[in-house]
Amino acid sequence: MPPLRPVLTLTTDFGTRDSYVGVMKGVIAGICPDALIIDITHEIAPQDILAAAGVIQAVLPYFPDGSIHVVVVDPGVGSTRRPIALQTPQARFVGPDNGVFGMVWQEALRRWPTATDEVQGVALTEPRFWLPSVSATFHGRDIFAPVAAYLATGVPLTDLGTPVEHIVVLPAPQPVWVSSSLLEGQVVSLDHFGNARTNITTAHLAHIETMEQIRVTVGAEQVPDPLVLPICHTYADVPPGKPLALIGSSGQLEISVRDGNAGATLGLHTGTRVQVVRG
Amino acid sequence: MPPLRPVLTLTTDFGTRDSYVGVMKGVIAGICPDALIIDITHEIAPQDILAAAGVIQAVLPYFPDGSIHVVVVDPGVGSTRRPIALQTPQARFVGPDNGVFGMVWQEALRRWPTATDEVQGVALTEPRFWLPSVSATFHGRDIFAPVAAYLATGVPLTDLGTPVEHIVVLPAPQPVWVSSSLLEGQVVSLDHFGNARTNITTAHLAHIETMEQIRVTVGAEQVPDPLVLPICHTYADVPPGKPLALIGSSGQLEISVRDGNAGATLGLHTGTRVQVVRG
Amino acid sequence: MPPLRPVLTLTTDFGTRDSYVGVMKGVIAGICPDALIIDITHEIAPQDILAAAGVIQAVLPYFPDGSIHVVVVDPGVGSTRRPIALQTPQARFVGPDNGVFGMVWQEALRRWPTATDEVQGVALTEPRFWLPSVSATFHGRDIFAPVAAYLATGVPLTDLGTPVEHIVVLPAPQPVWVSSSLLEGQVVSLDHFGNARTNITTAHLAHIETMEQIRVTVGAEQVPDPLVLPICHTYADVPPGKPLALIGSSGQLEISVRDGNAGATLGLHTGTRVQVVRG
Repeated sequence: MPPLRPVLTLTTDFGTRDSYVGVMKGVIAGICPDALIIDITHEIAPQDILAAAGVIQAVLPYFPDGSIHVVVVDPGVGSTRRPIALQTPQARFVGPDNGVFGMVWQEALRRWPTATDEVQGVALTEPRFWLPSVSATFHGRDIFAPVAAYLATGVPLTDLGTPVEHIVVLPAPQPVWVSSSLLEGQVVSLDHFGNARTNITTAHLAHIETMEQIRVTVGAEQVPDPLVLPICHTYADVPPGKPLALIGSSGQLEISVRDGNAGATLGLHTGTRVQVVRG
Repeated sequence: MPPLRPVLTLTTDFGTRDSYVGVMKGVIAGICPDALIIDITHEIAPQDILAAAGVIQAVLPYFPDGSIHVVVVDPGVGSTRRPIALQTPQARFVGPDNGVFGMVWQEALRRWPTATDEVQGVALTEPRFWLPSVSATFHGRDIFAPVAAYLATGVPLTDLGTPVEHIVVLPAPQPVWVSSSLLEGQVVSLDHFGNARTNITTAHLAHIETMEQIRVTVGAEQVPDPLVLPICHTYADVPPGKPLALIGSSGQLEISVRDGNAGATLGLHTGTRVQVVRG
Repeated sequence: MPPLRPVLTLTTDFGTRDSYVGVMKGVIAGICPDALIIDITHEIAPQDILAAAGVIQAVLPYFPDGSIHVVVVDPGVGSTRRPIALQTPQARFVGPDNGVFGMVWQEALRRWPTATDEVQGVALTEPRFWLPSVSATFHGRDIFAPVAAYLATGVPLTDLGTPVEHIVVLPAPQPVWVSSSLLEGQVVSLDHFGNARTNITTAHLAHIETMEQIRVTVGAEQVPDPLVLPICHTYADVPPGKPLALIGSSGQLEISVRDGNAGATLGLHTGTRVQVVRG
C-alpha cells in the first residue's frame, strides 16, 4: 500500500494567463503541503456552469476514492449563492452552490439512496476555515481553496458549516425517443481535436444488440441530405479524412473525423442535432 | 504543524507549447525532488518585465513564508545583466536583475528597513550551483532552476554569490491627484475575463469615507460623454451585461462587466485612463 | 542524497482545455501517489509524431536518471499499432510504437550498443497493469498511465509484456553537405517566441574552428537576395529588432530576432531552407 496522500483537483474557468490558479495553490500549500494538486482544466468557457458540471462528473471514476474536487465557475461570487462542500462514498467536493455539482450529487443520491451519513452536504459557514480577509470577487482563493485544504488535512466535513438538504441542479439537455426507432440527441461539447461528444450514451443504446442495427445522422434538419456516419470501433476503421461515429472513452456517442477535426470539417457545434435510427 | 516542504513557484513568458518549463522542472527534480513546484503563469507577454514584477508582487501574500519564487522574463539573457537571488523575511527570489523583482524589493525595504540580515541579495557568481554547461540563451534552465532547487535543499543565500546593494527597479505608472477631488490612474492589465485592473488601490482611496462619495469614469479624454460607472461591492450589484467598478481581490480598483468582458465591451486596454472624482 | 521519488513526465497532443491530461494524472495518483508528475507539453500539434519524438529526445538530458517519460501522440489508437515500454540506462518510456520513441531509441542503441540487458523494450501485453476496462480511443488513460505508474512503484519492465527487438523509427529530415563548403538544412520547429530551430547542430559544425568562418542564409531559393545573418553568441549581440543566428540552448542552430519574433518577421516556417556557407 502506498502511503495515503490526499488528492485535490481544480476545475475552473480562470484560464492560465492570470495568477488566479497559482494563488489558489499557494493557499493550499500553506495549509496542506502534502496534498497532490491536479489540474483538471482551467479552460471551462467563462461562466459555463453546465460544462463544469459535466466535466467533474466525467472525470470522477478515474480518481482515488476520497479525492477532493474543487470547482470554481462562479458568476454569482459575492452574491447570495452559497459556498458548499459535499461528501459521497466516492469523493468530496468544494465550490459554489450554483449547479456545478448538480450532476455528481444526483448520481450519488441514486447510487447510495439510504446512505444518509455518507452522502451529505454543508453550507460553508465557518470562517475559521477561510482566509482571514474574504474578498467579494475571489472565493476560490479566500474560501474554497482553504476549505479544501483543511478537508485534506483531515477536518471533518461537518465542522465546515451547517447541513444542507438540497443543492442547485441545472436542467441539462436529454436525448428523446422521437419514435420507437429514432433517438434524437445533441452535441454537448467539442474537444481539442474537434471530436463532438453527444448526450447519447451507452445506456441509451443498451437494448440495441449490435451497432450494425443503427444509423447515425447529424444536422438532419439543416441539410436536405443528412450525413450518415458509419458506426466504428476505432478511428482507424475509416480512411484518413473520413467521418465516423463511435462510443468515446466516456461512454458517449461521439462524431469524429479520422486524423482530422470533425467540428471544423462537419460544421458541428454545441447543440447540433444528432439522430440514431434503428434498423 | 504540517511537515516542512519547500514551495517553489515559476513565473515566465515561456508559454506552455514548448518544453522550456518542463525542462526547468526536470532540473529542479534532480536536485530537490521534495520541492512542491507551483506554476504562477507562463503567459507573461514576451519580455514584459513590468507585468512580471506586478504579478509576483500580487501573489506574494498567498504563499507560505520562505517560498522560493523563480521569475524568468529575461530579454537580456547572456548579456551583462546579472543573475540574482534575494531574501526577505517573507520569501526568496531567483531570476535576472532586470526589474522583475523591483516591486517586491522596494516593498521589502519599506517593511523591514533595518533588517539588514534578513533583506539581502546576492549576484549569482558561484557556478557550482549551476548546471555544468551554461548556454547563452536559457539561464532559466542552466542557472535559475538549479540555484532555486539548491536554496530549497537548504543552501544559504550567501553561499550562492557575492552581496549586492541595489537591484534594478523600473518606473511603473503611478496615479496622480490632478486636483484635490480628481485622481487619475490607468488600466495596468486585463485578465482572462476581460476585467481591467487599474493602478488605483485602496491606499489611494483610504481617506474617502464611503464609496458613494466617488465617481469613476473611463476613457474621459477620448469620448465626449465619459462612461460613469457605479461603484459596487460585487458583480451581482448590477444587471447582467452592465459595467461597474469595484475593488478587486488584490485591492485594486477594477472595471468589469457583469457576466461579460469589460475589455472587449468597453474598449479598454493597458494605459486606458481611469478617473476617480470625489463628489 | 535526496530521497528517491519517481519522476514521471507527460508529453501529449491533448491540449489543456479538455480533462484528458487531468484524468491520466488521476489514474497515476491512484497507483503511485508519490510520483512527481511533470508536464513537458500538451500542445504538440495534433498527431505530429515527429515533433513529439524531437521534444522527448531534447528534454531527456535534463531529467534524473530513471525518469519515466509517457508520450501520447497516438493517431492509430485502437488499431494494430503496439503499446510499448522501453528502458535505457538513462530513462524509461511508455507510449505507442508509432515513432514517438524512434529518436531516443536510436540514440540509446548508439550509446550502449552492447548493453542488451539495459536497453530493452516490451510490447504491453499484460492487462493486469491496465485499467479494468480499456477503451478504443484513449489508451493514454487506460494503458499508458497505469503502466507508467506501476513502473514508478517498482514493477520491472519485463513484467509488463513480451520483448520487442525493433520499434518504429520515422525518417526525419537531415541536413546535407551540398558541397564541401555548403551545408543545407531546414527549420524543424518554431517556439513561442518565434525562434526557429533548425536541424543543423553543433555536431555538424564541429570541424569549423570559429563561427566567423561561416555565413548563415535563410530562404535562399525563394528570394533573389538571401538574408545573411550574423552568427552571435547571444541575442544582445545585435540591436533590438535585428535578426541573428546562434547556437540555441539545445545545441541546434537557431534563427532569432532580438526582442522580436523571427518566425513572423522573416516569414519562417517548418521546412524553410537554411544554409551554412564556409568562407
